[in-house]
Amino acid sequence: MPRPTGRPRTAGVSPTGRGTREDILHAGARLFCTVGYGSTSTHALAEVAGVRQATLYHHFAGKHEVLLELLLGTVQPSLDAARALLARDEPAAARLWALAAGDVRLLSGGEDNLGALYLLPELDDERFAPFHARRRELEEAYAALVAQCVAEAADDPGATAAAGPDHLGRRTALVLGLVESVILQRRRAPATLDERTPALVADAVLAVVGVPVGRRGEAV
Amino acid sequence: MPRPTGRPRTAGVSPTGRGTREDILHAGARLFCTVGYGSTSTHALAEVAGVRQATLYHHFAGKHEVLLELLLGTVQPSLDAARALLARDEPAAARLWALAAGDVRLLSGGEDNLGALYLLPELDDERFAPFHARRRELEEAYAALVAQCVAEAADDPGATAAAGPDHLGRRTALVLGLVESVILQRRRAPATLDERTPALVADAVLAVVGVPVGRRGEAV
Repeated sequence: MPRPTGRPRTAGVSPTGRGTREDILHAGARLFCTVGYGSTSTHALAEVAGVRQATLYHHFAGKHEVLLELLLGTVQPSLDAARALLARDEPAAARLWALAAGDVRLLSGGEDNLGALYLLPELDDERFAPFHARRRELEEAYAALVAQCVAEAADDPGATAAAGPDHLGRRTALVLGLVESVILQRRRAPATLDERTPALVADAVLAVVGVPVGRRGEAV
Repeated sequence: MPRPTGRPRTAGVSPTGRGTREDILHAGARLFCTVGYGSTSTHALAEVAGVRQATLYHHFAGKHEVLLELLLGTVQPSLDAARALLARDEPAAARLWALAAGDVRLLSGGEDNLGALYLLPELDDERFAPFHARRRELEEAYAALVAQCVAEAADDPGATAAAGPDHLGRRTALVLGLVESVILQRRRAPATLDERTPALVADAVLAVVGVPVGRRGEAV
């Protein structure tokens, strides 16, 4: 997807020092989250990025490719963390906690609420398949950790976790919902998100999975 | 906002029998959730509704008014329920459970995922103030019930609920996040939502608030 970079842009060097490609991504994030994806033209995108439209098309096939790269950035770091956590042997509850906290930190960080773009109907387009594939893999990692948590808690008298594939799928949906709810919270009341939010959401994730407080342990 | 109805539309009677106004709202819901709000013109709106643009403008000042009315419909029934529940004297946990379950049912019902429109940047416009005001009132009702749950559970040894205004605000944010996460779940995996979802989310809400299982009681 991304084309080779390197050709100097028509409008000169990047005024921010981040480079042309980053300037375009930054402009896309800002415009898609304030004006709206559907209402943003490549003309506006180029203008806010401080480049000519020809330069924009040299780096991206269109605004959809800008959006795709922004979306991938909201998943890839959590996916990398998930792969690493799945390979470790700490208790599942501690690893699920770490994954959820890191994911919340990612979704609530950055200058723009990029997770809000998940709800765009435009994402049904085939061109966003790479985003959906990575997000699915991340969901599967959550599902695996939820299943391990339930298995670990099965012999604990304080556990309220229920087994069964149906229950596991539903619990995973609640976990994903809790993590991604920071996207909605950030839209509704951004001031209520702070550095304690990731830990609080991760605690809530373990409560929803049914891990008893005493078994929640420490972050990985 | 809504103008007086009654003038027969240029294109004849409503083919669906729902009436012109409802046909326009229905077309708006479908287009905003599939094509996108920013990408939907009043021309397309009128065409899908089966009316002329002049007729659309007779009923609505523009597509923003169609959106506003759709958004109000995603809050008003839950707000009515919240007001009624706040006036009752059953245990707060049971009332919070009932509010959350009903809210989830509303957000996951209907033909289109209207909650997805909550994330539109266009909603920052002053013209959507009536929606934000009602949503804030609903949030305050949740906050009041969460505070009552925590107070009721304070003398229960099994309770994990913590008091203090900061904690209450954070718990309320988690509760709202859990309820509204069905919007994200519906976008991601609509097949995973079914008639059991409202009860499961409401159970998770009580878990997050820290109401011990034994005190959760029955739905109001």
